[in-house]
Amino acid sequence: MGRARVRLQDIADATGYSMNTVSLALRDSPRIGALTRALILKEAERLNYFPNRIARSLVSQASNTVGLIMTDIMNPTQTLAARTIERKLSLAGYGMLFAASDCHLDNEKKALQWFQSYQVDGILIYPADRTSLDHLKSVRASGIPMILLASLPDAGLDVVSVDNRIGACRAIDHLLSKGHRRIAIIDGGNAINNTEKLMGAKQAIADAGLCDEVLSLIIPEGNTAAQGYQAMDQVSRLDPKVTAVFTSTDSLAIGALRWCQTHDIAVPDELAVMGYDNTEAAEFSSPPLSTVHYAADEVSNIAVDRMIELIKTGDTDSEPAIERIRPGLVIRSTT
Amino acid sequence: MGRARVRLQDIADATGYSMNTVSLALRDSPRIGALTRALILKEAERLNYFPNRIARSLVSQASNTVGLIMTDIMNPTQTLAARTIERKLSLAGYGMLFAASDCHLDNEKKALQWFQSYQVDGILIYPADRTSLDHLKSVRASGIPMILLASLPDAGLDVVSVDNRIGACRAIDHLLSKGHRRIAIIDGGNAINNTEKLMGAKQAIADAGLCDEVLSLIIPEGNTAAQGYQAMDQVSRLDPKVTAVFTSTDSLAIGALRWCQTHDIAVPDELAVMGYDNTEAAEFSSPPLSTVHYAADEVSNIAVDRMIELIKTGDTDSEPAIERIRPGLVIRSTT
Repeated sequence: MGRARVRLQDIADATGYSMNTVSLALRDSPRIGALTRALILKEAERLNYFPNRIARSLVSQASNTVGLIMTDIMNPTQTLAARTIERKLSLAGYGMLFAASDCHLDNEKKALQWFQSYQVDGILIYPADRTSLDHLKSVRASGIPMILLASLPDAGLDVVSVDNRIGACRAIDHLLSKGHRRIAIIDGGNAINNTEKLMGAKQAIADAGLCDEVLSLIIPEGNTAAQGYQAMDQVSRLDPKVTAVFTSTDSLAIGALRWCQTHDIAVPDELAVMGYDNTEAAEFSSPPLSTVHYAADEVSNIAVDRMIELIKTGDTDSEPAIERIRPGLVIRSTT
Repeated sequence: MGRARVRLQDIADATGYSMNTVSLALRDSPRIGALTRALILKEAERLNYFPNRIARSLVSQASNTVGLIMTDIMNPTQTLAARTIERKLSLAGYGMLFAASDCHLDNEKKALQWFQSYQVDGILIYPADRTSLDHLKSVRASGIPMILLASLPDAGLDVVSVDNRIGACRAIDHLLSKGHRRIAIIDGGNAINNTEKLMGAKQAIADAGLCDEVLSLIIPEGNTAAQGYQAMDQVSRLDPKVTAVFTSTDSLAIGALRWCQTHDIAVPDELAVMGYDNTEAAEFSSPPLSTVHYAADEVSNIAVDRMIELIKTGDTDSEPAIERIRPGLVIRSTT
């Protein structure tokens, strides 16, 4: 059988001091002399003792932990955000719990329960379903700070995100300026009710005084390169006159570029391709991909600052703050 | 100020039952009648009550949580493994804590402390430094099951991993069979004392009766495409007669492919490129990348099964089990 974890009693037994003295020494109480404390700390280290965060958090009601729910751990912008958030929280003295919903509401609810049972101090979340937020509001109403990392300004919750509507609008505007008048949008987000990029695209068309027929929409089941490749089969079948493709992620665009290669279609001369996110893969694709810069670092930094502010002030009743970053374009060789 | 979290007392107050009755009802005790239980559960739901895992785990000493320490959350094979591990643990009723060490021993130690203070039932770990494992052994010795996800059979710890020595050996063997006699190895892992792939490469050279001069080694600071691109500058400067490049990750190889394109070097005719991992990016690179298949799914499944076995038996004193998967090659268009 496994050995029991080291407890205060073990340190008391090993040093001959009382449990009370050991406990005070480990909490740096001034009531314990320096020599005694040093001896107890040394023994604690030798025994591989760790303070029980669980017991502490029962007393303090603060776990110094923030939960992050991603929709997809394989999404490069989310993992980049997760890394930035984890580092920044760590510097501020907070641990981080992760969970991934895979865009399933049930998984999201399970993660929220899990986080709450751990007494997290706050929750950052890429929501699984943008049309179903009531359970999130009820978590916030129960007193837990929550920040959406999605552009949902009317959700009644704090928001820190890239304004993808503006990002898509700028992308389509760029394609229009290059003379394209038949543009296919491949939008994996649309499959989970995220129509923000489509709205932005339509805005660009309207601003240019053109009609919606300029755009056609393909909705793959997800955002991988394989799905981008398959989506191009659909584009060529449904709308062969398309001269430009705008995808909701760089991964989809990289699949589309591969499709062009295997079908001997020259990029950008015969078909322009515009991605979204500006991941490292976009920079190193062949040809290098024009894309929209998703400022994951900036979003993460602002979100963590706001979260710590909410935790420290304990304010979850005031009006939610909405912070949306306007993304710029990175034009490379595919448009 | 934020509202306090909902506690048992709130449910007792709202329903008129005693704390004891509420507590028993929420734990599905047969001592509470069905109607009473239904009423209490309904009120608990209305109040957004969640059982306090922290208090429970103090009593049971089991947190039903497993910790995972990655070295790099941006590494696609590790994020794929993390996703598989999280899903499989979740099906088995376990939550997962993540942390990332960024290959810094200090971060790893901090994550271990954090996990221990949460009373995790077990720890899965990609070690930060393969030459420094004593602190891991002492965690296991304190009674916490631990599995290394790195091929370190002599560590005195449980191991589930891909045998990267064999993977590299097969990759070099493949390049030798194509007639290459000047091969550059670009190995980001080497910068953090992971010399497994280099050992495998040397093995292949020895098995073929060739001398080590066949190989030259470039050690970038990491495993990104940008570092692969820069490493190719070094290769061309230091060893211009090289006809094949073997990289320790697909990302490095994708950077190398981009370098070939910008320098008008035909792949594979003038230079063969062999990656490692078989990520989606390898399949969709241009040209599609020959690589070694890192079976992240298989490793994750075996590791979780073993972890649950260790947790359930409470056995941390028996001989560690070593499970190493022999990776195969995926030959595409770059070799």
